[in-house]
Amino acid sequence: METATSIGAYLIQRLYEEGVHHVFGVPGDFVLKFDKLLEESPIELINTCDEQGAGFAADAYARLRGLGAVCVTYSVGGLKIANTTAQAFAEKSPVVVISGSPGTQERHKNPLLHHKVRDFDTQYKVFQELTIASTILDDPSTAFSEIDCVLTAALRYKRPVYIEIPRDMVNTPGNPHYFRKQQVDESNAETLAEAIREAVTLINAAKQPIILADVEIHRFGLQDALLQLTEQTNIPVAETVLGKSVISEHHPNYIGLYAGALGNELTCRYVESSDCLIMLGVFLTDINLGSFTAHLDPKHSISVTSERTSIQLHTYEDIRLQDFMDGLIGAAIKPQQDLKLPNYRKPATSFIPVTHHPITIARLFERLNLFLDHNLIVIADVGDALFAGLDLFVHGRSRFLSPAYYASLGFAVPASLGAQTASPGTRPLVLVGDGAFQMTGMELSTIARYGLNPIVVVLNNGGYGTERPMLDGRFNDVLPWRYSQMPKLLGVGRGFDVWTEDELETALRESHSHSASFCILDVHLEANDTSVALKRLTEGLGQRVNA
Amino acid sequence: METATSIGAYLIQRLYEEGVHHVFGVPGDFVLKFDKLLEESPIELINTCDEQGAGFAADAYARLRGLGAVCVTYSVGGLKIANTTAQAFAEKSPVVVISGSPGTQERHKNPLLHHKVRDFDTQYKVFQELTIASTILDDPSTAFSEIDCVLTAALRYKRPVYIEIPRDMVNTPGNPHYFRKQQVDESNAETLAEAIREAVTLINAAKQPIILADVEIHRFGLQDALLQLTEQTNIPVAETVLGKSVISEHHPNYIGLYAGALGNELTCRYVESSDCLIMLGVFLTDINLGSFTAHLDPKHSISVTSERTSIQLHTYEDIRLQDFMDGLIGAAIKPQQDLKLPNYRKPATSFIPVTHHPITIARLFERLNLFLDHNLIVIADVGDALFAGLDLFVHGRSRFLSPAYYASLGFAVPASLGAQTASPGTRPLVLVGDGAFQMTGMELSTIARYGLNPIVVVLNNGGYGTERPMLDGRFNDVLPWRYSQMPKLLGVGRGFDVWTEDELETALRESHSHSASFCILDVHLEANDTSVALKRLTEGLGQRVNA
Repeated sequence: METATSIGAYLIQRLYEEGVHHVFGVPGDFVLKFDKLLEESPIELINTCDEQGAGFAADAYARLRGLGAVCVTYSVGGLKIANTTAQAFAEKSPVVVISGSPGTQERHKNPLLHHKVRDFDTQYKVFQELTIASTILDDPSTAFSEIDCVLTAALRYKRPVYIEIPRDMVNTPGNPHYFRKQQVDESNAETLAEAIREAVTLINAAKQPIILADVEIHRFGLQDALLQLTEQTNIPVAETVLGKSVISEHHPNYIGLYAGALGNELTCRYVESSDCLIMLGVFLTDINLGSFTAHLDPKHSISVTSERTSIQLHTYEDIRLQDFMDGLIGAAIKPQQDLKLPNYRKPATSFIPVTHHPITIARLFERLNLFLDHNLIVIADVGDALFAGLDLFVHGRSRFLSPAYYASLGFAVPASLGAQTASPGTRPLVLVGDGAFQMTGMELSTIARYGLNPIVVVLNNGGYGTERPMLDGRFNDVLPWRYSQMPKLLGVGRGFDVWTEDELETALRESHSHSASFCILDVHLEANDTSVALKRLTEGLGQRVNA
Repeated sequence: METATSIGAYLIQRLYEEGVHHVFGVPGDFVLKFDKLLEESPIELINTCDEQGAGFAADAYARLRGLGAVCVTYSVGGLKIANTTAQAFAEKSPVVVISGSPGTQERHKNPLLHHKVRDFDTQYKVFQELTIASTILDDPSTAFSEIDCVLTAALRYKRPVYIEIPRDMVNTPGNPHYFRKQQVDESNAETLAEAIREAVTLINAAKQPIILADVEIHRFGLQDALLQLTEQTNIPVAETVLGKSVISEHHPNYIGLYAGALGNELTCRYVESSDCLIMLGVFLTDINLGSFTAHLDPKHSISVTSERTSIQLHTYEDIRLQDFMDGLIGAAIKPQQDLKLPNYRKPATSFIPVTHHPITIARLFERLNLFLDHNLIVIADVGDALFAGLDLFVHGRSRFLSPAYYASLGFAVPASLGAQTASPGTRPLVLVGDGAFQMTGMELSTIARYGLNPIVVVLNNGGYGTERPMLDGRFNDVLPWRYSQMPKLLGVGRGFDVWTEDELETALRESHSHSASFCILDVHLEANDTSVALKRLTEGLGQRVNA
């Protein structure tokens, strides 16, 4: 790519250099000129049906590639992705929100231009609440440095950022003398050394050290470092809900998912009885903590995230998670001997479908466990798709995506668009409730348009199954769509109705061999058939609703 | 209804008293308790597929009933309706946004609860930008007065408001000694008298006075006052795009739609040559002004809105639009004699379908004009649905809804849900482009669930037809859905494919007699077949894109 001279071209060049080769969005007149520039660039512009779908797709893309982007028009596009951007903020996904806007020359005397809300900066103010950095590129002399500054923040904090480009700035030249300074983000060497010394001492003295790994291992691309640390020290690894698949769940040191009462009971006991809990990139969210049923004692903990490091009851500043992990790897931690790991339930190695037997959540996920392989990436929506999904044993690393903290329904189908675009070698296995599917499932249209082939499993239990045990009412029902008919509407794809175990078997087999387009399985479940994990969680959450 | 004692019950009681008998929303754990209270109240809770649909439905309901409400959960629900609330703000639709939120007792020590973005007040801050008044009901001693204060603002300014109710406050008693003071909003009597005197003098001295009526006539329910003023003075009336159907378009004093180059040419000439232009509730938006091709001379104008009154080049404060119109009605304005109104094109009185002749936009709307009656309410989405729709002659008053300023695509289908709920005697005729339908058309599910029966006309031209003339690219294409197959997916409704004039005839006739459920007409148009109005407008807008 030639060195860009216009503001729009520079933004595209920098995105491409950072690995953003696809941008998701919906056009609109205030962003058309930038869309045209994108179309003519090496970046592919992927048009979704609605902006919400683009926002979720970009979030999934960012989780897998380290940076993603969504490109929309002013207000009527931008404000539609307030929620998806909020999710990216909460779950540390570095999404660049690019919004076109009225030209600087159109704003004189504050006219009532279409798409304007209160003032020309209303959208900007909204996104200041939802992003870690934001800018309006209305000054050619600073536009290049603004772009770099905002992208640096996205990469450093792994949070969304906002870039607004007035349409008369797209082709305007930036500062021709601008030179990008590489910003180096480093730990304070002395602080780091002291923290490492202290941590190593504690670990070497411990009888039962354990690593608990969470979301930041995914976000900062530290899966290799985690693996090396584990194998070198032989310390067992548990993962959180949000961190699921941070290590292969078939690895011998993997000891299960920890989430208080929500997770595996044996894992829970092992983690909570540890005398040295090494928490790497862990966020103590309510879902990670099994609705606060977890009991982690800070006095026996080492916790390092990009935001804060604490050992026992004191804290350190200026330590990067990467550097801390490298420090542990480089230190003389004595390998653990004769581990007695909890003997938790491994997945069954065979599944014999019972003909005409109605399918249940438990049996569905038993079967899905055997269906998984290295190419499948599981994308679980909120609800039992996620909670039952926690029992899946995922093969690869970062092969399980879910909005397991912010928990916005409707993530999974558009996220599969983003995920498969980010990792063309994978095939998404989408787990989605019927309520969530009705929010964003029509992005199957975009999936069809761009020739992708996820397998979408709709957990059809007639409504919001997670809420029924908390407080039920007609508001938890949804209209029973005939999900398997989706290909009739879109003119592409394959649909299956699954009522029984043998129908599931057939549908999975045919989906596996049908790779030309998406497949959708309408899995008909009893309304009150929920996973064991969900039952435990909703008991906790229900008490809060009814408090 | 008994006098409410709890905060949640009081909110419901006050909404009901103000005419809100239906609330649109999606449940979620932070709002479940309030949803349950709604379910047990005389207000009907209508569940949409996605929150966006609920937001648009509530907007349409508010436009027709004077107040509407949408009820969602915290962040994952609330932030999804940032855009629909922005539209309600821009177009003066009084929507009450009700959001559940974490209980006040759950917020100690700022835990990472699910759905939280940055801080517990992130959503509140966002909605402060998008509403005219907002509150969090976290104090039982002030909650009742806060509710009244915020609802009063919605009714007075006809803008959206935000009410957040922490879930542990829903059943908490409010102040038992609270007594609601009726707030009276009055004009300053002396200022009003002076303004009326001056206006009457100008009108009586004018040779060609004309009334231009806009959106606030709809919003403040002043259609009767407008009719009385017109008939008493015999002054002709033109309407704006956003004000369309403010008076019956078959009324003898109605002289057409004024919107600069976008509107009727004869109307434009008549309005712009007037020596006394009486603008009632008019907002000078770019679309109302035909992309600023309008030429209105303030020196010959009287303009009154709820926000500002100006006569010629000076302004008055503290005058209510209602009072000003009543003042004119009560004054001795001499009736106009021997009007020479422009002889603009009236709708054809017959339509003879040409068998096998491909349907065009022009012929479609010619036919639709004959299809209209007093029961049909036209709901036009953004794009040629709106621009071609401007040529429809609407029978009743406030029988044409469209987001003609903020212009958010995807309004029409969910708006028809809100409109038919608000006015059960009507049947919506929805005009929607294929691009807009792909955003929110699945709310046909909600329409089916609640037994409504709009007739949905999809203008299927393969993409964003409004943008192609501005700047074309693959980004303006959409996947060709088979819209007529929608009933197969939903299990209800009737679908029609319309390629020719005779197929249109059949589809309209059958839709008319099929009132049991929705009907959807997939009207296949050439990609470059646009209305005359759109051609004129996009020439103007295209120059701005390419400036």
